[in-house]
Amino acid sequence: MTQPADRLSAAFAALADPTRRAILARLSLGQTSVSELARPFAMSGPAVSKHLKVLEKAGLISRGREAQWRPAKLEAAPLKAVTDWLEDYRRHWEQSFDRLDGYLAELQNKKEV
Amino acid sequence: MTQPADRLSAAFAALADPTRRAILARLSLGQTSVSELARPFAMSGPAVSKHLKVLEKAGLISRGREAQWRPAKLEAAPLKAVTDWLEDYRRHWEQSFDRLDGYLAELQNKKEV
Repeated sequence: MTQPADRLSAAFAALADPTRRAILARLSLGQTSVSELARPFAMSGPAVSKHLKVLEKAGLISRGREAQWRPAKLEAAPLKAVTDWLEDYRRHWEQSFDRLDGYLAELQNKKEV
Repeated sequence: MTQPADRLSAAFAALADPTRRAILARLSLGQTSVSELARPFAMSGPAVSKHLKVLEKAGLISRGREAQWRPAKLEAAPLKAVTDWLEDYRRHWEQSFDRLDGYLAELQNKKEV
């Protein structure tokens, strides 16, 4: 990236990684330490820390101030911003499914006649 | 990226760019050509084509078969997948706002006493 990313772009970019999404899923159950987070992923502490830095920069998590422990905590505001952006597109997939429903109903009617 | 991205990661990565989100916003009004898309962005055709390739690879758009025109069309299914993923986190920001509401109500009560 050559220019500083806007908040929404930073959130989308941070979410574009399955490990980071899994970390957020774990944090949605409660705050925890890097070593606790590393365990289920069979990842090193530094590898997890690197992912946490991306998530923190995007505002998706915050870190505690305790020198050793520094628990990571989910911050939901950027997820809400992302959802709000997607909300404008809801009618598009709802229309797609309505068209499919209409088509299936039509097939059903033909069968019954 | 060193490994092929999963569908959800590809969608998030494609959305992590303000120009690509603006292109999707334009396509949500109806399918259109590369030259039509390029106009409001003051971008070259090749620059728009590059963005369209990323969006197409992520399944967010499809392209028509007409050799010259090849209109781009919004495809909503990946946006639905992204929204479905975010839905699990809705209670987190709703809780945050509930706590804020509670705090504001408390302040209001104190004022009224």
